[in-house]
Amino acid sequence: MIAASAGGEALDNPVLVEVTRGGRVESRHRGTVAVVDASGATVFGSGDPEAPVYPRSAIKVFQALPLVETGAANRFGFGNRELALACASHSGEEGHVALAADILVRAGLGEPNLECGCHWPSSGTVARQMARNGVEPTQLHNNCSGKHSGFLCTAVHEGEATESYVQPRHVVQDRIRRTMEDVMALRLDPDEAGVDGCSIPTYAVPVRAMAHGFARLVGETGVERSRAQAGRRLIEACMAEPWYMAGTGRADVSLMEAAPGRVFVKAGAEGVYCGAVPELGLGFALKIDDGAGRASEAAAAATLSRIFRDRDAALAERFAEHSRETLRNWRKIEVGDVHAVA
Amino acid sequence: MIAASAGGEALDNPVLVEVTRGGRVESRHRGTVAVVDASGATVFGSGDPEAPVYPRSAIKVFQALPLVETGAANRFGFGNRELALACASHSGEEGHVALAADILVRAGLGEPNLECGCHWPSSGTVARQMARNGVEPTQLHNNCSGKHSGFLCTAVHEGEATESYVQPRHVVQDRIRRTMEDVMALRLDPDEAGVDGCSIPTYAVPVRAMAHGFARLVGETGVERSRAQAGRRLIEACMAEPWYMAGTGRADVSLMEAAPGRVFVKAGAEGVYCGAVPELGLGFALKIDDGAGRASEAAAAATLSRIFRDRDAALAERFAEHSRETLRNWRKIEVGDVHAVA
Repeated sequence: MIAASAGGEALDNPVLVEVTRGGRVESRHRGTVAVVDASGATVFGSGDPEAPVYPRSAIKVFQALPLVETGAANRFGFGNRELALACASHSGEEGHVALAADILVRAGLGEPNLECGCHWPSSGTVARQMARNGVEPTQLHNNCSGKHSGFLCTAVHEGEATESYVQPRHVVQDRIRRTMEDVMALRLDPDEAGVDGCSIPTYAVPVRAMAHGFARLVGETGVERSRAQAGRRLIEACMAEPWYMAGTGRADVSLMEAAPGRVFVKAGAEGVYCGAVPELGLGFALKIDDGAGRASEAAAAATLSRIFRDRDAALAERFAEHSRETLRNWRKIEVGDVHAVA
Repeated sequence: MIAASAGGEALDNPVLVEVTRGGRVESRHRGTVAVVDASGATVFGSGDPEAPVYPRSAIKVFQALPLVETGAANRFGFGNRELALACASHSGEEGHVALAADILVRAGLGEPNLECGCHWPSSGTVARQMARNGVEPTQLHNNCSGKHSGFLCTAVHEGEATESYVQPRHVVQDRIRRTMEDVMALRLDPDEAGVDGCSIPTYAVPVRAMAHGFARLVGETGVERSRAQAGRRLIEACMAEPWYMAGTGRADVSLMEAAPGRVFVKAGAEGVYCGAVPELGLGFALKIDDGAGRASEAAAAATLSRIFRDRDAALAERFAEHSRETLRNWRKIEVGDVHAVA
């Protein structure tokens, strides 16, 4: 941890999102955005897109590529829902938990094989319903249980030991690391990895590189055709079944449902958001400096609005509406909003 | 809301708190701190202490002064626990709810007289236990129910109508506004107020003015003796019964318990923290630009550590420990920390 402060220089990323109350700005969120095409050219952006940030869950599609590429997804009957769940940070609702359990059964495994840990669903509504029903969380409720089930299916398909599959040098994580190196066109050092919430390694990379990775997959440029096809299959699955990728009332779902089949988005912890627009061959990524999810959601919507501004005014307006959320207090009185700054 | 963006100029407040993962800074929180003595002199600080911010719940002590000053607290048998609850943002635990209900009964009122609204306790543990027991939240579970019960006791004591007591021009809120104007030595305009989570007005004031208000109460300077005495009584009640001011595991409690009877602190929403050190006649206040509670807690501990640095090294060290929290993932693996920057 001693090295931490060395990275603590104050960045001058711009304010991307404001939170208002009574007509006054109450809080502000700074950050970085990069929208990139498959050639790596920045279409637009703000802040410092070269500063390394942990992508966290926003690049689960990259981490799920081996599941498709090895043939494990086909062998274990992965349709759109299973593939979306393998790319998900899900809300631990019954449908998510049941499907993750089913996937493990298909691979001859079960909940004890997971190494993601237990947590209560982040949605208070879901957690309280579980409590009412006398249900305690298992590893299947972990928001990453679909991704981990996919890891385990890949290992079983390849005849690899499943134990310790979360460790940076396990063959499962090594394969994922090499895949991410290829997709983002950079090198990742296991000795430099952080540990993610679900115990797998997370590698700090530039926001621009994340965006470029998504652009290369949907633009089918710079990576092998089979890899791009695997990426498209995962992205199309998420767009077809957004609920399995997130859950009831989640921003990932409402943003993808705003443009069905045309826009992919994925949130990550600590204010990260990634996405892709296949019809334009564009990828985007953003990081809110302070890690706030409310700001990353507004900024993702604003980024999509900007992408479509000169191409589809109606869609741009729909995303602009998503970039502003009215805040109401406990008596439903409107008190302010969260909005992206133009 | 149109005026909001006018306040959106990027401030250059310094980074006060960093969040690390894997030896790297993952997220950063900027903000403003002011430590002020009763004369109004700034002892130390950082950022822009003159920029107006909403104090939110961090100045509940100021809002509770009329409860003591009118004699209502004495009439309705307020001891330390009741006074602490009147200054609380409590966790809605059984003891908080029961005491708020009891206070209302003493004034001949009940839960329906509250106008704070219902919400589930923010603590997932508390909320899930309620759900298990088949309990639904009432207005008594609102974190502000103690403060509102105090408002109602004051109105009953004064023979005022209690209905609409949350409105900016109701006599209850008018009295509070004039009290806050005196304590912070500034003018507050009801037409400029924001609406707080519990529906009462919240007035944007400089961080320095909040700190000065606390310093004037504990320094017994610049306000009438009876007002300072009322403030001391409230602050001493909070220090004596910190659990009633917050709840199990809350930062307010752990910080006050680190120096029993010597330090007062109070969190507010959107990254505000206020406090006072009676033995030194000092007040402090801080605001995290992005509104993050994790950062305001670390910054409050660091501020207290700095206040005691040259006066009580052991206590300063204890607060320094509170300014750094280790982060563990779902399998209890240490993944990083939240720490105040020196």
